[in-house]
Amino acid sequence: MTIPEKVINRLTMYHFILEDMEGSEKYVSSTKFANFLNIDNSQVRKDLKYVDNQGKCRVGFEVESLKRKIEECLGFKKTKDVFIIGAGNLGSALAKYDSFNDYGLNVIAMFDKDLKKIGTTINGKKVFDIVKINELTGKMGVKTAILTVPREFAQEVASYVAKSGIKYIWNFTTCILDVPKDVKVWNENLIGSFLQFTQNDNDI
Amino acid sequence: MTIPEKVINRLTMYHFILEDMEGSEKYVSSTKFANFLNIDNSQVRKDLKYVDNQGKCRVGFEVESLKRKIEECLGFKKTKDVFIIGAGNLGSALAKYDSFNDYGLNVIAMFDKDLKKIGTTINGKKVFDIVKINELTGKMGVKTAILTVPREFAQEVASYVAKSGIKYIWNFTTCILDVPKDVKVWNENLIGSFLQFTQNDNDI
Repeated sequence: MTIPEKVINRLTMYHFILEDMEGSEKYVSSTKFANFLNIDNSQVRKDLKYVDNQGKCRVGFEVESLKRKIEECLGFKKTKDVFIIGAGNLGSALAKYDSFNDYGLNVIAMFDKDLKKIGTTINGKKVFDIVKINELTGKMGVKTAILTVPREFAQEVASYVAKSGIKYIWNFTTCILDVPKDVKVWNENLIGSFLQFTQNDNDI
Repeated sequence: MTIPEKVINRLTMYHFILEDMEGSEKYVSSTKFANFLNIDNSQVRKDLKYVDNQGKCRVGFEVESLKRKIEECLGFKKTKDVFIIGAGNLGSALAKYDSFNDYGLNVIAMFDKDLKKIGTTINGKKVFDIVKINELTGKMGVKTAILTVPREFAQEVASYVAKSGIKYIWNFTTCILDVPKDVKVWNENLIGSFLQFTQNDNDI
């Protein structure tokens, strides 16, 4: 079953809420999610149908069971190994972002071209010379790379990475990448996020 | 005019592409944007109507003029001052992320409760004691804060920040915040992004 992207996004946020409730509360209502996220109650109930959970009349959804079902549905327990390309500020911060692990995202190595960084370890993840990516993609069976190099190198590095067998690039740069059709790019457009957030408010 | 959030997001990405073309190419077709972003040509043309730009038959849109119109439309030149709350790895990386400045996002100060961090400077931005936020929000006229504290402190800090007069919280934590109705939260849900990106691909 294909779950729409927006629904996946909201399901992870329901999970964040359930995480905070677990241990202290037994039931949760769809209204609680709706209020937290400032969305419609009907939207929440529609989303939760994807995880095949039945809320009980009056008491709502069982916290633990709903949490587990979201985890199964979104595959949190199925670890996905990823590389980080670019051991600069943002790459290092993401390597140290331990929440990723809780959600099945496992950074197993980093790559850079800076000799001062190559061979060092960031939060337990070794930084390799970028020329090694071809060899290591095959050996480690990694298909996904997080791209955090400076904008001016982004296209060149992405083309190089695409040749190594990487099939998914999570792009944190402000460069829109031109890669072969079989490589999927997800643009983590922080600038766009900020503008979406603040655009329609004239008092900022 | 209110521009839908998705359109704002795509307009910034067209701008990233125009940035790379400027100086080397005079015209750009909607097809070029569509191919880069793997979306429909008709979608691109619909989006560009928001910036009131007229493409010419056969030659397309003028690169420089379209870039400038997107900038005006999305207000890149109108600087928005923001605080970063949490001078840890991610907060520091965002403070060093100079692309923000090109798009009108100006980090003017950071806050933390760690005595070792207070008084230091990260990429020219001074780290203040979090207890000073009330005073500085008023003095500096800042309405927006980027929240990058550890998850376990997120709710407490957000409530504190909301009392200081901050009206917009860009939330990078995995905690869904419960704040007064007049404070707007934008959840930068990186986990959700990753899962959206990889969910429907079974070979990762």
